Amino acid sequence: MSFRIGSGIDFHQFAEGRDLWIGGIRVPHHKGALGHSDADVLLHAICDALLGALSLGDIGVHFPNNDPRYKDIDSKILLKETVGLIAERGYSVVNVDSTLCLQEPKIKKFVPAMQETIAAILEVTSADVSIKATTTEEMGAIGREEGLMAMATVLLQKK
Amino acid sequence: MSFRIGSGIDFHQFAEGRDLWIGGIRVPHHKGALGHSDADVLLHAICDALLGALSLGDIGVHFPNNDPRYKDIDSKILLKETVGLIAERGYSVVNVDSTLCLQEPKIKKFVPAMQETIAAILEVTSADVSIKATTTEEMGAIGREEGLMAMATVLLQKK
Amino acid sequence: MSFRIGSGIDFHQFAEGRDLWIGGIRVPHHKGALGHSDADVLLHAICDALLGALSLGDIGVHFPNNDPRYKDIDSKILLKETVGLIAERGYSVVNVDSTLCLQEPKIKKFVPAMQETIAAILEVTSADVSIKATTTEEMGAIGREEGLMAMATVLLQKK
Repeated sequence: MSFRIGSGIDFHQFAEGRDLWIGGIRVPHHKGALGHSDADVLLHAICDALLGALSLGDIGVHFPNNDPRYKDIDSKILLKETVGLIAERGYSVVNVDSTLCLQEPKIKKFVPAMQETIAAILEVTSADVSIKATTTEEMGAIGREEGLMAMATVLLQKK
Repeated sequence: MSFRIGSGIDFHQFAEGRDLWIGGIRVPHHKGALGHSDADVLLHAICDALLGALSLGDIGVHFPNNDPRYKDIDSKILLKETVGLIAERGYSVVNVDSTLCLQEPKIKKFVPAMQETIAAILEVTSADVSIKATTTEEMGAIGREEGLMAMATVLLQKK
Repeated sequence: MSFRIGSGIDFHQFAEGRDLWIGGIRVPHHKGALGHSDADVLLHAICDALLGALSLGDIGVHFPNNDPRYKDIDSKILLKETVGLIAERGYSVVNVDSTLCLQEPKIKKFVPAMQETIAAILEVTSADVSIKATTTEEMGAIGREEGLMAMATVLLQKK
């Protein structure tokens, strides 16, 4: 059996007047995430982990943030394209584990919907997509609610 | 063979008048870590990595920081409960790798005791529990000694 | 088959009058990274991930930053020594995934040379060494260009 591991990390600033998309779900909040796309920090970290596992470059290489095609794009489309690149090379996802670092809002009640959304795109079950959350205990830029961060690790297997 | 990977990250502020528990060991220091439990940042990161590998939620879901049962609790108890959840599902730990990010104190001389303590709970050998340390080179909140951070990755195997 | 995972993280401050070494390559920039060695943040994160996977201690244990032997040393030498420790124990690298967090400079055009350099030392192909990059979206110490960070994950296999 042939395995590969990947890891990704992504950051976005919070900004007024933007929707907050996390894990493919719109999370109600008085601020959203700033970015060229919908700025879904969790999906971007997962894309980067998938790309990294097969050394295919990073999300900025595949979906440049100065390309008008990706302006305000739904990051679920980027994840689907990424999964296609993995599948073309004969790999499938064993499991994904991820952590969101943000002070507010609490995302626990949205996690099941995020898991289902991501699992459908990755062609795995919800139980193969873990989404955890933590604060930075009010420390640093994320603790001051200037923005949020997501980290993801993935295990791939050759089909 | 069936493998799963997990990753965890945890943060705690330093505070006067608290003990500093790291990796199940009390580390002498003029400040401790602030938290509802004993605030053992390393054990919390490992718990989260174990839970994440099997998509069992996060440490905040299992051990809420507003539950009086967990007030000042020894995090070794939380790790033991977490290991029970993994074992119930037929998985065991292959290895754990972790990194502490903190400016002070130096923890090198406590690492062997931390490894033994954690290995006993995970039912592996000390050589399967890696604990590394780094500073942030005096940058950011951790560099200013406002707090500390731990990251952990785990590989699990179906027994 | 016997697998192990490891993860590493490293930080360095930027400073005037230093060269900027990343991934074994000198990257043109008006500032370099401060450190006892050449301060190659990416090679240090990869060393730590390799050491961590086999629980061999961390880079500070093997190459102390107060040891004159390592003053301004080329970190490729440290990586080569680390690979030797892994090989002695019968392990080889399956793949490495890494992410650089830095605001400036853009490193994309240097990535292929970094991959080749690292792959040669790890005795794998360039396609087994992934190097990604992200900014922190101008947040925190790294966003203020005070320094840079690298994270790496590795999968090892018993030969």
